[in-house]
Amino acid sequence: MANVLITGGAGFLGSRLGRELLAAGSIEVAGQAAAPLRRLMLIDSAPAPQDLAADARVTVLEGSLAAVLNESTAEARAVADADVIFHLAAAVSAECEADFDLGIRANLHGAEALFAAGRRYGRVPVVVFASSVAVFGASAEHPLPAVVDDQTLPNPQSSYGTQKVMTEFLLADYTRKGLLRGRAVRLMTVVVRPGRPNAAASGFLSGIIREPLAGQRATCPVSPETAAAVGSPARTVAGLLRAAGASDSAWGGLSAMNMPALTVTVADMIAALERVAGTGAPELIDWVPDARIASMVSSWPARFQSDRAARLGLAPDPDFDSIIALHLADMRG
Amino acid sequence: MANVLITGGAGFLGSRLGRELLAAGSIEVAGQAAAPLRRLMLIDSAPAPQDLAADARVTVLEGSLAAVLNESTAEARAVADADVIFHLAAAVSAECEADFDLGIRANLHGAEALFAAGRRYGRVPVVVFASSVAVFGASAEHPLPAVVDDQTLPNPQSSYGTQKVMTEFLLADYTRKGLLRGRAVRLMTVVVRPGRPNAAASGFLSGIIREPLAGQRATCPVSPETAAAVGSPARTVAGLLRAAGASDSAWGGLSAMNMPALTVTVADMIAALERVAGTGAPELIDWVPDARIASMVSSWPARFQSDRAARLGLAPDPDFDSIIALHLADMRG
Repeated sequence: MANVLITGGAGFLGSRLGRELLAAGSIEVAGQAAAPLRRLMLIDSAPAPQDLAADARVTVLEGSLAAVLNESTAEARAVADADVIFHLAAAVSAECEADFDLGIRANLHGAEALFAAGRRYGRVPVVVFASSVAVFGASAEHPLPAVVDDQTLPNPQSSYGTQKVMTEFLLADYTRKGLLRGRAVRLMTVVVRPGRPNAAASGFLSGIIREPLAGQRATCPVSPETAAAVGSPARTVAGLLRAAGASDSAWGGLSAMNMPALTVTVADMIAALERVAGTGAPELIDWVPDARIASMVSSWPARFQSDRAARLGLAPDPDFDSIIALHLADMRG
Repeated sequence: MANVLITGGAGFLGSRLGRELLAAGSIEVAGQAAAPLRRLMLIDSAPAPQDLAADARVTVLEGSLAAVLNESTAEARAVADADVIFHLAAAVSAECEADFDLGIRANLHGAEALFAAGRRYGRVPVVVFASSVAVFGASAEHPLPAVVDDQTLPNPQSSYGTQKVMTEFLLADYTRKGLLRGRAVRLMTVVVRPGRPNAAASGFLSGIIREPLAGQRATCPVSPETAAAVGSPARTVAGLLRAAGASDSAWGGLSAMNMPALTVTVADMIAALERVAGTGAPELIDWVPDARIASMVSSWPARFQSDRAARLGLAPDPDFDSIIALHLADMRG
């Protein structure tokens, strides 16, 4: 029997991961055979989706991580019952860039509070941490290599990426000390996200597909030749589950693992949109350059060679048409 | 006129740096001509040496960084008057390995408190941060490259190294945001340290020279073929001052800079000791293997190619004999 905790469990990825776990009814943990899911705890500052909250196996804790995990709370003790913690909660990139202190508090101090709570009762849970491609960056002095691999030096050009890489190192040290079993996974930009736009700088990469497919206008703040490294929601969740399920030796070390990436340009994405939805769809996109967004997005690498992920059996989405097809299937579902 | 703050200002490196600044009476800051030294503030949890405290230009603040820099104190406001901050204060490697929470509090939270105080009144001081070779490490999955350079991926195998690399990234983000002008400098193992042994895992690298030269016995916990990357106190302080004095463009980016390193084996060091002090000196060394120390020290790289440091005009000590000669001159002084 396994207890699972998801921080950011009311968010898009967290709730999708939660639904998959509840549907499967079991989870593979650190190289062991699949264990039945006993309890799924969701922590989020936003309310959890109704379908999740209604499941008898689900416990919802609403509030900031630091508040929920204060040492004296029963919730902090409950965290210590987790066999697997998926740490997805985060203030997103544009929020952190606009409010430096918010990012430090939510992302850095939130992770510190979670790891400290996770270790407190000596259970040594597996902790899958959703890091980000934003740990990498191009600067004037340090251009990106043509292809980024698992040994590339992080050089974040955003506070969000900085907090992510700091958390990776903190989790690695908890792991080295035997206090947690950390697996930091750097997610690519997840497309197509359903729902409303969020404050992530990369949000438009979903919007320019999602909105036209729904017959609505969308804004693109970057030029068509802008390249991005993307992954579908399905493959992203599969990567998180694979990280939890890998044995320590298969996982392969303390450092963070880059997810597989499909490299696409905005023009590629729009060509795929047109193939699926006809010539009218791209016409719903308004091109409104935004230098702030463009500079953040263009500092992220677009081309990856993700050897560790490949060794775990993880592959990138084959093409952008299939990503759109997955999104349409999700919308029908 | 320049105000200078040294955290860890009562320590070996901090007080040496303080004495050099007081003797020079001026400091170069960020590419400007040397400015007269108006005030030197020392923060340390230990009392400052008498000669420093007696200088009219010196202010001493005794206490932990977090306590001294609490927002409401006059001291926190005084920090904001600094034009240059040398952040040397740290719990050392073996302390942090023995007490995980101490390291987080002293090294990570201490740096956070300092940077937050430094930015509070909008002066944007130059912050020279003493990071460490301990950010690098060899692990089973990620052996070290034959030569470490400024682009090598940190892979700390100690909590101390973890806290150092986290602080490097935090300082880089403060710098990118224009809140501070950070210069993170990775120091090599500083030898020969005067005085009593401290709790640094590398402490014996000074002890096996210092103690025999003073006619006392010393303990060596590693084998003679163990290699280390070292720098003399004089060149280490020179590197810190050069980091403060370099213009932003000469400094060359947000990421940390490796100091130049002299690579020596313990056997090399003892051969030099014998050349200086005769055959009796090495006989004062007791060889007492300590697996904990040996594993930490041998995880650190010994061979560096420090291109950024070279571009700033910094060179390694020429040989270990000259490092011993510097130590003997210091002892006579």
